[in-house]
Amino acid sequence: MKNKLLIVGTMAYDAIETPFGKVDKILGGAATYIGLSACQFSLDSAVISVVGEDFDMQHIQLLKDKKIDVSGVEIVKGQETFFWSGKYDKDLNTRTTLETRLNVLENFNPIIPSSLRSPEVVMLGNLSPEIQIKAIEQLKIRPNLIILDTMNFWMDHYRSKLDQVIEKVDVISINEEEARQLTGEYSLVNAAKLIHQLGPKYVIIKKGEHGALLFHHNEIFSAPALPLDKVLDPTGAGDSFAGGFAGYLTQTLDFSFNNMKSAVVYGSAMASFTVEKFGTDSLINYSYSSMANRLKAFKELTTFEIDF
Amino acid sequence: MKNKLLIVGTMAYDAIETPFGKVDKILGGAATYIGLSACQFSLDSAVISVVGEDFDMQHIQLLKDKKIDVSGVEIVKGQETFFWSGKYDKDLNTRTTLETRLNVLENFNPIIPSSLRSPEVVMLGNLSPEIQIKAIEQLKIRPNLIILDTMNFWMDHYRSKLDQVIEKVDVISINEEEARQLTGEYSLVNAAKLIHQLGPKYVIIKKGEHGALLFHHNEIFSAPALPLDKVLDPTGAGDSFAGGFAGYLTQTLDFSFNNMKSAVVYGSAMASFTVEKFGTDSLINYSYSSMANRLKAFKELTTFEIDF
Repeated sequence: MKNKLLIVGTMAYDAIETPFGKVDKILGGAATYIGLSACQFSLDSAVISVVGEDFDMQHIQLLKDKKIDVSGVEIVKGQETFFWSGKYDKDLNTRTTLETRLNVLENFNPIIPSSLRSPEVVMLGNLSPEIQIKAIEQLKIRPNLIILDTMNFWMDHYRSKLDQVIEKVDVISINEEEARQLTGEYSLVNAAKLIHQLGPKYVIIKKGEHGALLFHHNEIFSAPALPLDKVLDPTGAGDSFAGGFAGYLTQTLDFSFNNMKSAVVYGSAMASFTVEKFGTDSLINYSYSSMANRLKAFKELTTFEIDF
Repeated sequence: MKNKLLIVGTMAYDAIETPFGKVDKILGGAATYIGLSACQFSLDSAVISVVGEDFDMQHIQLLKDKKIDVSGVEIVKGQETFFWSGKYDKDLNTRTTLETRLNVLENFNPIIPSSLRSPEVVMLGNLSPEIQIKAIEQLKIRPNLIILDTMNFWMDHYRSKLDQVIEKVDVISINEEEARQLTGEYSLVNAAKLIHQLGPKYVIIKKGEHGALLFHHNEIFSAPALPLDKVLDPTGAGDSFAGGFAGYLTQTLDFSFNNMKSAVVYGSAMASFTVEKFGTDSLINYSYSSMANRLKAFKELTTFEIDF
């Protein structure tokens, strides 16, 4: 029997404009990217989410084909799917949100089917801390690992609720600016120390094209991002990272710092695939054989020999 | 007999303000940092530079004590030493130049003493390309390696002269924005490819707190910066990096990609020392035993195990 990964997060339609193209309505959402990224590993995954009546059944089928359990995806009649529209600057690092239509998300009350309430690993995708708490409360047993992804919006407006979630999780994944905002500390080393005090034993600080840092008290690991000659669309990079990270840990259930490092590299590899194409295209057409090459590239990129 | 490193660059007095302190007049300049950083290695180093009558003889003595040959440092009577004043933002990444007084630099015509004209390695610190060319032209033989550090100012105003220098060097060290400016390419992978075509076989792209990338055609190495809990003053980080890089390569004279990687790590280690104190304080009081610990920290920071 395989280990179980429960993913709580959004499913969405996105309109995206980057210097390399424009799409009006493609499949998106944190849970989608996390699910498609995590399903590359040997595990049983399930998604808790909500979509509207407009949601294309081919997209549900796509997840099913990838062996992702969608029995926890609620379809709300008479309403529309969460919609996000954004535009990237020419440097691809600056993103402007053009439109956010919450639609079905507005009143989303997550219900986890009974059969999915005992996962080994829970991945909370970026979403309202209210919903994240409600999901955690439905679990029958404390999972071996709970991973949280969140963002500045929840820090701005729902800080006390967010703090309740942060207290309950083992790993938090946020970006540089968010780590600084959460703690008021500019140094990421000091920020990570303060975040440890809020609850999470592991702190991941994502730095986009500069990679990611993993902190576990006095231990630090730095994973570079793979330098790519072409980045088409950064959307979903963080979620793909989370999916690869969570997927690898669900498969191995080894939470030593050494294995956490490997998980960060798998996450970084998945993110590097995602940004090479628009939306979920890379993840959908991903072939496992390309993973070995990419891991090899990460190894070559970081290995050096020095006697000391 | 030890291998010889010839350093061409500025010596200066700096006034620096960071969120952690303020100094009115401390020893600075690219050649100073490069020299103090490189002299930690087993080599014979010499500096070609110029200072004014105001230059404190204790500072000349300081370099001499570090076994740096200063016979190529011209002292101009009746003029003042190059002065730079700058202020750092609270994030330490944004720097504003408050004042630049070129003084003796304005009419600097570098004269390399005959005994110093056959170095194995030449390190051209950030300086006018005109002066860099004049220095190269005085060499008796083509050095095993010429390394160039430069900046956006010279790209803006002296591009064709700069291109002449770039064509003659083996390694160029610039920051992200400069790599993009030099090539018009946003992707650093593509920027490095174009820079290779301009001449340098090795391209180092410095990313400050995010580390540095080393490119050699299709090979890439990513060195992180050591995450530090306290950065007091980033001044001289790039020069200290260059000094460590050049110093290690002068000592070893091995220009394989593997050894270049090690040189980048040594450079990064020296930079990490420099930023922990104001000005050259860390380099002056540096102890070799601390190097081993720092290299160990770099190794731990980057090592991961994955089977593929």
